[in-house]
Amino acid sequence: MKVSNYHDSEAIKEVEGVLKREVITASDGAPNYIMRFFEVETGSSTSSHSHPWEHEIFILNGKGVVVGEQGATPIGKGSILFIAPDEPHCIVNTGNEHLEFICVIPIQQE
Amino acid sequence: MKVSNYHDSEAIKEVEGVLKREVITASDGAPNYIMRFFEVETGSSTSSHSHPWEHEIFILNGKGVVVGEQGATPIGKGSILFIAPDEPHCIVNTGNEHLEFICVIPIQQE
Repeated sequence: MKVSNYHDSEAIKEVEGVLKREVITASDGAPNYIMRFFEVETGSSTSSHSHPWEHEIFILNGKGVVVGEQGATPIGKGSILFIAPDEPHCIVNTGNEHLEFICVIPIQQE
Repeated sequence: MKVSNYHDSEAIKEVEGVLKREVITASDGAPNYIMRFFEVETGSSTSSHSHPWEHEIFILNGKGVVVGEQGATPIGKGSILFIAPDEPHCIVNTGNEHLEFICVIPIQQE
């Protein structure tokens, strides 16, 4: 069993204004999927892209929008996002505090 | 893309004092793993058990302990737990507010 805090994982700059921490990885023994913790600064956004794997996301803190083919949908603390394989998407912080979320992806994408 | 709030998923009584919401499931199109939201009342505990699949857990709120073969380890907001397949475990709320967490499991266990 691994018990830690998300702060224990190194913060990696993903793009400008976006930090990523890989909090559960294959090196912990995870056989199927990994968990990452993201922190998006006010006014910043994750990169707008698509890829052949899914995202399962829980919004921990802050306010923003998720932008997909259907346009922009408001998100905030307690929001759940399922982004299917190959769906274009980005997450934008439109609030005045950090937008924090958990994102789980299949392990072959690590 | 599915965008919702964890409150939108029905709360199911898992054991006494423990509510479970299945927030991302196969019916949403999830191909590999599902996300659940748990709420444990003060003084209550998830069932102590083991099973041949892993848990990836993020603690959202509250205070407690995770009990495994190594004994009891304190957990709280921001804690990360990786429980490997076949590891005995339970999560106990030792604080004075609800202990809330996200738990991701492989989809074949739904």
